Amino acid sequence: MNIIGTPLNRVDAHEKVSGKAKYTSDLVTGHALIAKVLHSTIANGVVKSFDLTEAWAVSGVIDIVTCFDVPDIQFPTAGHPWSTEKKHQDIADRKLLNKRVRFYGDDIAAVIAEDEISAIEAVRKIKVTYEQYAPILTIEDAMKSGAMAIHEEKPDNVVVKSSYEVGSFDEASKEPDLIKIEGDYDTPIVQHCHIENANSFAYMENGKIVVVSSTQIPHIVRRVCSQALGIGHGDIRIIKPYIGGGFGNKQDALTEPLNAFLTTRVGGRLVHLEYTREETFNCTRVRHAMKFHIVSYVRKDGSFAARSIVAYSNQGAYASHAHALVANAVNGFRMMYPVGAIKGEAYTVYTNLPTAGAMRAYGIPQIGFALESHIEDIVSKAGFDSIAFRKQNMMKLGYVDPGTTITCHSTGLDECIDKGEHYLHYKEKRALYANQTGPVRKGVGMAIFNYKTGVYPIALETSACRMLLNQDGSLQLQMGATEIGQGADTVFSMMAAETIGLSVDKVHIISKQDTDVTPYDTGAYASRQTYVAGMAVKKTAESFKAKLLEFAAFMLKKEAFDLDIKDNFIVHKNKDEHLLSVAEVAMESCYSMTNSRHIAAEETHHCTDNTYSFGVCFVEIEVDIPMCQVRVLDIINVHDSGRIINHQTAQGQVHGGMSMGLGYGLYEHLEFDKKTGRMLNDNLLDYKLMTALDTPELQVAFVETEDPTGPYGNKSLGEPPVIPVAPAIRNALLNATGVAVDSIPLNPEKLFFAFENAGLIK
Amino acid sequence: MNIIGTPLNRVDAHEKVSGKAKYTSDLVTGHALIAKVLHSTIANGVVKSFDLTEAWAVSGVIDIVTCFDVPDIQFPTAGHPWSTEKKHQDIADRKLLNKRVRFYGDDIAAVIAEDEISAIEAVRKIKVTYEQYAPILTIEDAMKSGAMAIHEEKPDNVVVKSSYEVGSFDEASKEPDLIKIEGDYDTPIVQHCHIENANSFAYMENGKIVVVSSTQIPHIVRRVCSQALGIGHGDIRIIKPYIGGGFGNKQDALTEPLNAFLTTRVGGRLVHLEYTREETFNCTRVRHAMKFHIVSYVRKDGSFAARSIVAYSNQGAYASHAHALVANAVNGFRMMYPVGAIKGEAYTVYTNLPTAGAMRAYGIPQIGFALESHIEDIVSKAGFDSIAFRKQNMMKLGYVDPGTTITCHSTGLDECIDKGEHYLHYKEKRALYANQTGPVRKGVGMAIFNYKTGVYPIALETSACRMLLNQDGSLQLQMGATEIGQGADTVFSMMAAETIGLSVDKVHIISKQDTDVTPYDTGAYASRQTYVAGMAVKKTAESFKAKLLEFAAFMLKKEAFDLDIKDNFIVHKNKDEHLLSVAEVAMESCYSMTNSRHIAAEETHHCTDNTYSFGVCFVEIEVDIPMCQVRVLDIINVHDSGRIINHQTAQGQVHGGMSMGLGYGLYEHLEFDKKTGRMLNDNLLDYKLMTALDTPELQVAFVETEDPTGPYGNKSLGEPPVIPVAPAIRNALLNATGVAVDSIPLNPEKLFFAFENAGLIK
Repeated sequence: MNIIGTPLNRVDAHEKVSGKAKYTSDLVTGHALIAKVLHSTIANGVVKSFDLTEAWAVSGVIDIVTCFDVPDIQFPTAGHPWSTEKKHQDIADRKLLNKRVRFYGDDIAAVIAEDEISAIEAVRKIKVTYEQYAPILTIEDAMKSGAMAIHEEKPDNVVVKSSYEVGSFDEASKEPDLIKIEGDYDTPIVQHCHIENANSFAYMENGKIVVVSSTQIPHIVRRVCSQALGIGHGDIRIIKPYIGGGFGNKQDALTEPLNAFLTTRVGGRLVHLEYTREETFNCTRVRHAMKFHIVSYVRKDGSFAARSIVAYSNQGAYASHAHALVANAVNGFRMMYPVGAIKGEAYTVYTNLPTAGAMRAYGIPQIGFALESHIEDIVSKAGFDSIAFRKQNMMKLGYVDPGTTITCHSTGLDECIDKGEHYLHYKEKRALYANQTGPVRKGVGMAIFNYKTGVYPIALETSACRMLLNQDGSLQLQMGATEIGQGADTVFSMMAAETIGLSVDKVHIISKQDTDVTPYDTGAYASRQTYVAGMAVKKTAESFKAKLLEFAAFMLKKEAFDLDIKDNFIVHKNKDEHLLSVAEVAMESCYSMTNSRHIAAEETHHCTDNTYSFGVCFVEIEVDIPMCQVRVLDIINVHDSGRIINHQTAQGQVHGGMSMGLGYGLYEHLEFDKKTGRMLNDNLLDYKLMTALDTPELQVAFVETEDPTGPYGNKSLGEPPVIPVAPAIRNALLNATGVAVDSIPLNPEKLFFAFENAGLIK
Repeated sequence: MNIIGTPLNRVDAHEKVSGKAKYTSDLVTGHALIAKVLHSTIANGVVKSFDLTEAWAVSGVIDIVTCFDVPDIQFPTAGHPWSTEKKHQDIADRKLLNKRVRFYGDDIAAVIAEDEISAIEAVRKIKVTYEQYAPILTIEDAMKSGAMAIHEEKPDNVVVKSSYEVGSFDEASKEPDLIKIEGDYDTPIVQHCHIENANSFAYMENGKIVVVSSTQIPHIVRRVCSQALGIGHGDIRIIKPYIGGGFGNKQDALTEPLNAFLTTRVGGRLVHLEYTREETFNCTRVRHAMKFHIVSYVRKDGSFAARSIVAYSNQGAYASHAHALVANAVNGFRMMYPVGAIKGEAYTVYTNLPTAGAMRAYGIPQIGFALESHIEDIVSKAGFDSIAFRKQNMMKLGYVDPGTTITCHSTGLDECIDKGEHYLHYKEKRALYANQTGPVRKGVGMAIFNYKTGVYPIALETSACRMLLNQDGSLQLQMGATEIGQGADTVFSMMAAETIGLSVDKVHIISKQDTDVTPYDTGAYASRQTYVAGMAVKKTAESFKAKLLEFAAFMLKKEAFDLDIKDNFIVHKNKDEHLLSVAEVAMESCYSMTNSRHIAAEETHHCTDNTYSFGVCFVEIEVDIPMCQVRVLDIINVHDSGRIINHQTAQGQVHGGMSMGLGYGLYEHLEFDKKTGRMLNDNLLDYKLMTALDTPELQVAFVETEDPTGPYGNKSLGEPPVIPVAPAIRNALLNATGVAVDSIPLNPEKLFFAFENAGLIK
């Protein structure tokens, strides 16, 4: 390959670093009306009435819409491909504005005004009368017998319960001489903290509602808006410009359905609905807090006899992606160590907290923390070698998952572990740090993971692509799949150039998706794009190339079969002699007096495969016991994501994921008032995100396998880097201090209680 | 047919009448820089130097570009499909800004400023030193031996000379007993007067120059900008929103190439370049003034022995569409009465006047006036019946033009004439009005015409179209061809619905062209769109329908061959029973777990045919001899444009064309200062455009033939209505007064001299 595998600069680098790139808010034309949402100030209850008198009196107010004015339609918001089968459809459990209030911050009314100040003022002046109930903030309270139903459709507040068993856990656990290890692990509610807050603007054109939005999933948002408003898909159009990050939060319909409705209230005038940072924290989505109870029965030879897990996922107020995440987590439990009899059980539970949705790695950072902590507990308690034990039990090439049929088509995990170990001298240091004393100690830790690529066969995987030839021999590449900051446009451009035989500068990618003209794709999530949409690029490029060669053959009076394209020239297959430039073919195709044709290709790839990526994190930390602080001294992520399309952007992905993993392990968590359910740290001052000063040098290495199912040997990379960091730190803490802390983040408060409990501080 | 032929409301009617439709200037985002052009104040000369000191001192000035700063590239501007053969390429005779000044108003410098006032002020403060030559304003002066060359490439100022001969004119004219009729006819310079002035804005995005422009020909403008700036076609993108009229003026690159260049001077910031009405008059394009000398030899039986024409066309300063128009005129001379030996000769001549370009009917209103006046002179002088003489000599079914091979595939001209005659009682009135006396007299007149459909085989005819299925069973229709106010979007929507089997409301047409994603088409001109682009719609609709049926067959487990679509449902071929709705097919195609596909079709139609439309105008006027005024009492245009796609929009086209024809015949002409060459009436106050008060009730009738080469039996209609009006009025004046006025417009000034000359006034 000539282009795949090179460290090309991002195609959007210049636009983005120079500040020229246009995001949603930059695209507002003319005089925009401003919408602001009134959010409930109770977490559980019912809106009885509004007094709008003072609000209407604010000058500049154009319209006020309350939960009594919206269509009586319940709709789902999750960014999943739709299913025509009812049982696979997402749960439709919210309205555009909700009378039944289910969390502190629920949308109950909206104001449209001539300017932002009037809109804010009018929202403040709306008086609400509620019927108020006690907030249900924990899974335990929600599942208590007799607890009030948050949604009448789910009387016991359990959104979904699921279970599976591979072999017989009860049988297998009765084997004599087994070591039983048991543990409880829990993970916090965190937020995505993308730079660009949730925002959109909507207007009408020729009877069609147009919504320009910062979303990962324009085609899905179109479908959701169509459901929410009860109108045809063709009557709504979603445009997605550059977006300032999503991390799964924008894999949901957020401001768009309400915004689409609001423009219809003002005769199609442009209405801008931009969430503040506080609204983005409270009223978009968060990562599911999950609790796990894990039991393992291990033989003395280090093999597993039986493993079980019970998992509880805190859904918050609305279903959004709902059970898909904890189901993914307990499936991940099975896949990471697919050995012995395995039993899993999972509950997704409504509470009166903000709605949990998709977030980078979709349940796997949660199970990754629990399971890799648990594995380390086994290794420590049973005296196994932490690397050998993992290698013995982890997924091997050819594995076929009994739950999903997803097959291990390639694995470099063994080599990843060796590479990381070699970098950090993990074994040596682990022994060295085993029995330290004193207030400041060092420790090393590791954690492995595997991760699927896309959502097949759980859900549909489909992606389409279109290419158009320009008269100068360059091409327009039009993707349904979305650039969300991850570098997708760059790798798609490289793939197109590689397959056709052009240089990358000949590929003009159209970054903006517009559902009116963009080929269908479900969007950016599940680390699917290089794999699924990559195949659509490859398929379309082959079809496009065939059309180019067919026209070149017409010009040259040769067989297309004998021709090929290399470096922007038509050549004899397997020869380098230039017969024609692609530019000459392009000009003639446009202007031939006998055979003009607009050369374009458009193909769908319906993907019916999936494959696993692998990786490991090794970390070395210093623990200041009296200060209850962890400092990361050295950290490396080693990934097998198949062939790396672009080393520069791949490294960028791993850096970002590691940073997010460090925050997850050490600092980040959302706090709620225990009485009211109000979020307490809904801003970037009080919410402790990793800053540049907190971040150590991040080491990245790859083990490049060649996955036979990936379009260019590649497999998932976008989400995985976040997974192994938190458990690796926790395991390093265990190595340093002998204290196992089974709840993240490992912040000073938590360490204080853990160290006090362990007698390290008094 | 279910939909074709119905009087459907325009699909853009609501947007346009409610003022919501967005035109170029409405789409400017954020803070735009404003560009203003400095136009020369001499008509012939050379810019020696500028003094920019005072201009630069104006606050808010960002950049000043002069003719010494632009690329040394000459480029063509005409909106013709390009040709890869050098000899068929348009003449490249101008630069972005011109040092060699060739008319009063030539572009010599431009200012970019923060606001319009600063830009205007700075332009005013630029001081220019010229080397000045005497302006050459007439064809006679330009062709004089020893005249100064306006372009060095054409030393005799003749852009092109062409000639043809069918049979031997000299032989044929020697036949005994022939009546010889001879005449000189001339037509004025007029302007299109579209509501929206020439304007565009340009900015850069990811290294690509984007120009949003009010143009009829986005893909051609892209090519011209690429030539003018010396960059790849792929590095420039043209977006065409709704436009407020074009009439051929916007079938030229106008502000776009300079605008594209200007944004590169300011780091890609948005630069808006909006011409005033005065600039639009002076600095865009005008209709060619043409002079004709016609000689006819007619037998006593009313047949032609020989006919000849010499034509001179005043090109003005730059070539633009150049000789194509007068060539079309002298070909039209042959085609309108394709009898006897015919000889034609034509000259296109540079002068120091504003540049002439395309305008509705492209040379044919000029020859139409000359020839139908001349025919009336023959009829009058030789005592023939004006209708019988025309019917005897006009084009008949099956005619194959020897010059172009264009064949008469259908004609309803005979019936058109009868219908018009019947309406106006022309014969009766003509006799009645023949010998009036007194100051106020009445008269009737008629004129016929034929008109080609598109530009084949003179130039390339190619058009592409794309359709995308929405999940609700509606579709997006994406045309390369452009809506310019003529109703194209409406008829394309009807064609798509008709061919697929959907109702029209299921068709969402995308009115905006964007060369990045829009299928290739050359644009709106030559009345080509319903014929050429209509075929692209039909071909694409058939391909799209086949894909829909294929997927329906997969769902129904039937043969696609047995299925059809009627009224938005899949049915058994030739039965009406609904098997599935198209919406169900659409949903399943998007979400099928085994066979999802993005259903879209994209096809090019390379058109290799052409056909003639026909029509006639009958008019009755009242002439006030002392006041030298003509008042139109009654007027009817009867058209054979094949099958009428939409009677409502077709009538609209005819009304507009008749209004333009009335202005051409009675009022409109541009005046120039004879010393300086400065235009004297460059605004809508001094330029006498028809107003509602000047316009009589306009009668329209159609004779619907079924053209075998048209996609739905249709042929050209957009331009023809303008053609026969002026000569019909001139012939009515002859009937009323016996005075033949061979120069238009027939305004009071001209009538005064004509009546004085004829002794009607003293």
